[in-house]
Amino acid sequence: MIQVVKIGGNVVDNPTLLKEFVKDFAAMPGMKVLIHGGGVMASKMQKDMGMVPVMVEGRRVTDEETLKVVTMVYAGWCNKNITALLQAEGCNAIGLTGADGNAITACKRPPVHVESLGTEVDYGYVGDVTADSVNAAFIYSLLEKGIVPVFNAINHDGEGNLLNTNADTIASSVAIALANYQYRSKKDVCCRCEECTHCSDDGRLTHETDLVFCFEKDGVLYDKDDDSSVIPEIGREKFAQLKAEGRVADGMIPKLTNSFKAIDSGVAKVIIKHARNLLNTTGTTLV
Amino acid sequence: MIQVVKIGGNVVDNPTLLKEFVKDFAAMPGMKVLIHGGGVMASKMQKDMGMVPVMVEGRRVTDEETLKVVTMVYAGWCNKNITALLQAEGCNAIGLTGADGNAITACKRPPVHVESLGTEVDYGYVGDVTADSVNAAFIYSLLEKGIVPVFNAINHDGEGNLLNTNADTIASSVAIALANYQYRSKKDVCCRCEECTHCSDDGRLTHETDLVFCFEKDGVLYDKDDDSSVIPEIGREKFAQLKAEGRVADGMIPKLTNSFKAIDSGVAKVIIKHARNLLNTTGTTLV
Repeated sequence: MIQVVKIGGNVVDNPTLLKEFVKDFAAMPGMKVLIHGGGVMASKMQKDMGMVPVMVEGRRVTDEETLKVVTMVYAGWCNKNITALLQAEGCNAIGLTGADGNAITACKRPPVHVESLGTEVDYGYVGDVTADSVNAAFIYSLLEKGIVPVFNAINHDGEGNLLNTNADTIASSVAIALANYQYRSKKDVCCRCEECTHCSDDGRLTHETDLVFCFEKDGVLYDKDDDSSVIPEIGREKFAQLKAEGRVADGMIPKLTNSFKAIDSGVAKVIIKHARNLLNTTGTTLV
Repeated sequence: MIQVVKIGGNVVDNPTLLKEFVKDFAAMPGMKVLIHGGGVMASKMQKDMGMVPVMVEGRRVTDEETLKVVTMVYAGWCNKNITALLQAEGCNAIGLTGADGNAITACKRPPVHVESLGTEVDYGYVGDVTADSVNAAFIYSLLEKGIVPVFNAINHDGEGNLLNTNADTIASSVAIALANYQYRSKKDVCCRCEECTHCSDDGRLTHETDLVFCFEKDGVLYDKDDDSSVIPEIGREKFAQLKAEGRVADGMIPKLTNSFKAIDSGVAKVIIKHARNLLNTTGTTLV
């Protein structure tokens, strides 16, 4: 099994929460990938440098100076700090942007019409990724060696430009790509390497892959004001019913819709939980 | 052959020079590693953030806030920008700190007595590396796959702390470690992987490894005011003679002394040249 875990800025920006999370993540057995945000720290850094963060529908408008700041914060401080903390816990992490090993390419987003503003918005150096733009073979070659990839929100377009990307989308794209990646399982007589013709081949296999979103709530809540009302499991019918009842908060609807899309694309299950519950079963499982 | 190339901040901080260098570096055949500085940009960033860079004998005193800035600048903006530019030139680069894949560990430098100041200086989060602290097996596993490691000056202590290190020392330590790394060359009957017992073994071999320092001069000059007076080759006797004649500038003496130490430790040759001459033979070769 492979577990793809996403943590948001609320964990990354809080040293105490981050240390606890890192300990738990390091203790998770098996193949795993971490994707992290860091938006709160980026906004703070922009302000420290006399810049004004501009967000449109929750996405950061990224001009050249902003790209520099987010690359410094996400790929520099946050990513390397998390990697060093994981190494200290015995987890052989490697911090990556999409440019590293050509792991993930992104397409620069063209100016788009934003309904809520009634106007066209040019997000600048913002990129969109899909599962097709993930280099699953490279990521898998690291996992196979016991190395744990740690991605941040920076990717590249393959033409020398870095692009700021949504970390949730990176997480689901990586999970879908790994769920569909076909590796060769070989009987234990030789080297298991791709090129070898001296050992028998069990054919093409895939790993069951889960996607775990850690956020600041214990899961999807039946009553948004009652933290104890976590819904343990949501299937498609239940999701439709919750939407019809107006039970699911606005911000949660795209997260759940995207999660079901990931499941449609090969991900075994999506789990939404609090970062502190990484190692226990508390949370909402989408199946 | 493996070539370990170091470029200084003067190239990294100059977009035109950097683009030309990246093109040349991408075109270099064979296994290669890049190590880059970025000090000028770090000082500028410190000033933009209202901090005062403190340098003692050319080394940056690195308190907690300074560590954050240098990590953001070196491991974030500079490293990822260079990696994306190399990818665009068809060079499969991977940007690394020492924490990534546990590639390089560093020892935090204890407070030291600085002769020129007549006092003890605590450099803070500054680390020292040696060839023994380089994970040559990991770096070689990337090279073997055609991946090109790009290191910056940030390393870790293995206990969760990032440390600011001298990029020249990283370059010579990586070169020494790779020069001494013993890989197994296997006859072409099987997979060549380390674990395989099904193919014959040619025994332990090493790669000839060169260390190339690119800086802002064409090489070591016989007359420091005459750029055309490059000395093509310097051996130990010649070095002693140049020193005795007062021909070698103060700043160049430790660079040459360390270069000869690298040669004593297994590096085939050290080349000192201008970044624009990477692909031609202009420069000074130490043998």
